[in-house]
Amino acid sequence: MADDLFHSSDSHRSARPLAHARQVTFAEPLTLELGGLLPAVTVVYETYGQLNPAGDNAILICHALSGDSHVARHDAEDDPGWWDTVVGPGLAIDTNQYFVLCANVLGGCRGTTGPNSLDPATGRHWGADFPTVTIGDMVEVQRRLVDHLGIPSLLAVVGGSMGGHQVLTWATRHPERVRGAIALATSARLTSQALAFDVVGRNAIRRDPHFREGQYYEADQAPSVGLALARMLGHITYLSPQAMNEKFEADRLQPRELTTLFENHFSVGSYLAHQSDKFVERFDANSYVTLSMAMDLFDLGSTPAALAGNLARSRCHWLVISYSSDWLFPPAQARELVDALVALDKPVSYCNVTSDCGHDAFLLPDDLEIYGGLLAGFLANLQGTPAIKGGGAGAHHHHPTSIFHPRRIDYDRIFSLIPPGARVLDLGCGRGGLLASLRQRGGKQLLGFELDEQAILGCVQQGLQVVHGDLDQGLPAFADDQFDVVVLSQTLQAVRNVELVLADLLRVGRRCIVSFPNFAYYKLVEMLQQGRAPESPHLLRFKWYNTPNLRFLTIADFEAFCAERDIRIHQRIALNTEENKEVHTDANHLADLAIFVLAAG
Amino acid sequence: MADDLFHSSDSHRSARPLAHARQVTFAEPLTLELGGLLPAVTVVYETYGQLNPAGDNAILICHALSGDSHVARHDAEDDPGWWDTVVGPGLAIDTNQYFVLCANVLGGCRGTTGPNSLDPATGRHWGADFPTVTIGDMVEVQRRLVDHLGIPSLLAVVGGSMGGHQVLTWATRHPERVRGAIALATSARLTSQALAFDVVGRNAIRRDPHFREGQYYEADQAPSVGLALARMLGHITYLSPQAMNEKFEADRLQPRELTTLFENHFSVGSYLAHQSDKFVERFDANSYVTLSMAMDLFDLGSTPAALAGNLARSRCHWLVISYSSDWLFPPAQARELVDALVALDKPVSYCNVTSDCGHDAFLLPDDLEIYGGLLAGFLANLQGTPAIKGGGAGAHHHHPTSIFHPRRIDYDRIFSLIPPGARVLDLGCGRGGLLASLRQRGGKQLLGFELDEQAILGCVQQGLQVVHGDLDQGLPAFADDQFDVVVLSQTLQAVRNVELVLADLLRVGRRCIVSFPNFAYYKLVEMLQQGRAPESPHLLRFKWYNTPNLRFLTIADFEAFCAERDIRIHQRIALNTEENKEVHTDANHLADLAIFVLAAG
Repeated sequence: MADDLFHSSDSHRSARPLAHARQVTFAEPLTLELGGLLPAVTVVYETYGQLNPAGDNAILICHALSGDSHVARHDAEDDPGWWDTVVGPGLAIDTNQYFVLCANVLGGCRGTTGPNSLDPATGRHWGADFPTVTIGDMVEVQRRLVDHLGIPSLLAVVGGSMGGHQVLTWATRHPERVRGAIALATSARLTSQALAFDVVGRNAIRRDPHFREGQYYEADQAPSVGLALARMLGHITYLSPQAMNEKFEADRLQPRELTTLFENHFSVGSYLAHQSDKFVERFDANSYVTLSMAMDLFDLGSTPAALAGNLARSRCHWLVISYSSDWLFPPAQARELVDALVALDKPVSYCNVTSDCGHDAFLLPDDLEIYGGLLAGFLANLQGTPAIKGGGAGAHHHHPTSIFHPRRIDYDRIFSLIPPGARVLDLGCGRGGLLASLRQRGGKQLLGFELDEQAILGCVQQGLQVVHGDLDQGLPAFADDQFDVVVLSQTLQAVRNVELVLADLLRVGRRCIVSFPNFAYYKLVEMLQQGRAPESPHLLRFKWYNTPNLRFLTIADFEAFCAERDIRIHQRIALNTEENKEVHTDANHLADLAIFVLAAG
Repeated sequence: MADDLFHSSDSHRSARPLAHARQVTFAEPLTLELGGLLPAVTVVYETYGQLNPAGDNAILICHALSGDSHVARHDAEDDPGWWDTVVGPGLAIDTNQYFVLCANVLGGCRGTTGPNSLDPATGRHWGADFPTVTIGDMVEVQRRLVDHLGIPSLLAVVGGSMGGHQVLTWATRHPERVRGAIALATSARLTSQALAFDVVGRNAIRRDPHFREGQYYEADQAPSVGLALARMLGHITYLSPQAMNEKFEADRLQPRELTTLFENHFSVGSYLAHQSDKFVERFDANSYVTLSMAMDLFDLGSTPAALAGNLARSRCHWLVISYSSDWLFPPAQARELVDALVALDKPVSYCNVTSDCGHDAFLLPDDLEIYGGLLAGFLANLQGTPAIKGGGAGAHHHHPTSIFHPRRIDYDRIFSLIPPGARVLDLGCGRGGLLASLRQRGGKQLLGFELDEQAILGCVQQGLQVVHGDLDQGLPAFADDQFDVVVLSQTLQAVRNVELVLADLLRVGRRCIVSFPNFAYYKLVEMLQQGRAPESPHLLRFKWYNTPNLRFLTIADFEAFCAERDIRIHQRIALNTEENKEVHTDANHLADLAIFVLAAG
């Protein structure tokens, strides 16, 4: 088996001291959320780049269960960091621009106070007597560190998995200190399945006879078997089924030659043995129990109401990223966070990155183009230095279903129908052309909804808020009358669940602007009379068998539809886009496009 | 936490002797596939019902990893069996009709020779010295038992999970002994992910200090912690994420009160502790290692070619069932088996049962209506006593997209276009009306392809072969020219990937019969002229916004499409179904339906 198959997000980490790490001890006792008190707390941290004079370019990175303060290498000689793909000069989190800070979490085993620290009261290691700590306690220690370093507020707090739990806690506990929150591959609470895997891992550690109630530091053996079993289990949950097949199917029966006491029969077995044997050299079993329990106890709200209550306190811009093949922190959980933030009118962008890498995706280079681009674009706009300003460029973007000239007469009319300052939701916003123009005009509270990841990236790079979603699922996340105007431009004819989508549109927007091609346009009727399926003269690339248009309606059909459902039509604009003019008589016959301004009856 | 939350497929099993079990010892040594020899083999088995004089009503049931010979209760006083939902008087596997046989597998711990048996050579338990056994070895022992009981051939071999591996082995090793193979929730080989979970489980057992190289039978302690950890892990993989949320979210932090040495912090934790504490009372750790390794080593073919090579030997009728939420044996793996069988022209039916129950679904009552119905219908037809004969009944079934009278003129014409004895694939076959009529006329090698589970059940109850699938995914399973005729009746207009589907149709069938509504029919044109989206006069329930028809084409469009692609049109039949007659002039204007007979150019 090739060595690279044995690479994993942290397989290169060593147990030796962190060369560039600094440490600080806070003498002030720390009262813990679930009771108990730590007389003093030592924190080990590393920094990258320079804090600027204004002190507004600091980014706090929060690590996951098995991470530490060494987020990236400091120089060519340095050990690899756990996030070298993302953090460094010129990378997505650019240490030439930003002051990056990462600290080993409370309860960890890489320098910060944890179960392997000495309890000053007894002079012995805390061991299993180390009190139960929460994500909130970890964040409180990070807050002390941020104060200690004289950072007034953080440009962003960034983290994945358990690091994401810290991000969520920072944004809701210290809203005044956080300008941007970037949460990757995380959730408001673990699924029952993820919780169950953690329970099995802790049972493996605690029932290891060498655990000795957690007081094994002076013993000749540690509970290495239990810790290794927990780690093996973790590894399986970090990988997607497809990634495992790619790694291990070709040579399933040819394990790598290893010296291990674990089963080494299948290639996947030798991988798990290798990874876990290395892990136990650098990680402490008590810390594994402490940190996994903190993660399992984390709960930002088990009901939408509770979740909203907590997220309501945040005042930052949000970037939420999930990965399509992550089954440990499934995208649906990220979606719950995003839905709550959207319903609260918080500025949020969300992308579910298509990935084969499972939960580990946020640590791996495979999908970096999208998620790295989102990080860089989001941070640049937070800092006020966007690479793409947006506005004119891409404004006249084309929909897949657009039947129009580059010169978008319908686009201009829709723009003119939106009152300045209106809260606008643009469904199928593409790369954000309409939203950017509205923003140029002074518009605030502008949100896009889009299915295409590249288009989402384009929006985020312009500093526009956009949420990843499929219109045919409706708009369950959005509150009634949340927007002044909801725009559905050139999309209705490609929608499958027309009734669901229109009903949600009218629920979410006080006014809805809907445009669609008029199928009764005389030229289209003539084509059918001549025995052929009508095609728009402008839409040469689409035929009956490959057009994305699935619904063929006329202006009269739509008006009848609205009448049956008590949908009020405030305005109807009929256009002939070929002649680039409005149609005022016999519209159902002479117009090839209609724009309706609607409201619930 | 309510007790029923603690029920699992085998949570009720006890360790006490099986009252109705019989046993037989075969003195003839058993040579094992991977080397080694067992001097003699004892088998514990149970039977239900009576073997009929012809000896042709015997069904062998193969159990999964944690099962045994006690498949069902023998009477009201008896202990529950592991498949009481399916096996019994009047149930899906009706013990009033069939002679049911189930034996504890080789390597098991419930009476059949296994690691906890005495090695006659040493007089000690085999322990870890018990040789590695394969699924093939298990089946060889079952074959001896079937001979011993004087059963010439088995009406069916039935099993799920590891039991399914035995079914696959029976059908390919002893084709002359098996008339029907029913494989549930199984695969040709484990995924790397499933394999990895087994590796962790075995590591937990083997690295338990009480394992003592497998010689713990005389010791005061067994490797119960390791076995319990393996079982906890297993339980997680048997449940779907959604099932776990339903069981454990409501009271996540209220564990059931238990006396256990395992973590009892979360409700899911107390469930795992409870299940595994009970499991270790009745199961042997060495057997767990032996059986899970046999399952991990099972491989019916890692490539389509290898899989086909093995399945080619089978001569039975196949019923393959998967469950939509089973992530341990994902439906895609069942699909691999079905695809291979289809390409081999083997008689096979397949259904991916929609279920929330995960891998355990095949043991639970939740989805019994469909999978139990499939079992009963399949067996009844094997036995020649189908409940539904098929043919006339349901013959004039209606498609969701059908625009026709109950009297299907197009249906009769299509029937007349199919040469007697032709191999026919009916795409979107519904409940099998056309196929049943073709069979009545003496047709063989008839196969349906359908998306709806109830329709699939209807086909199987009539003894028709049908495969569960989505036409928009194409027909990758089918071989070139596999069928004389492929029928796509009243479905083209609802297809999304028209080009893909038609190309596959022409690849798989020597002749293809395609029917669709003609959109240029004068009455439809008139509607559009009057400014409204055309609606078929017969299709009052569908409107532009909810019709399943996504493609609007005319006879002329389709002929142009064929001309561009060098598709030969052998015959074209134009119908006016309102007047119930054929149209011979100006078809594109006067016909509301067209039937084309096509072939690749």
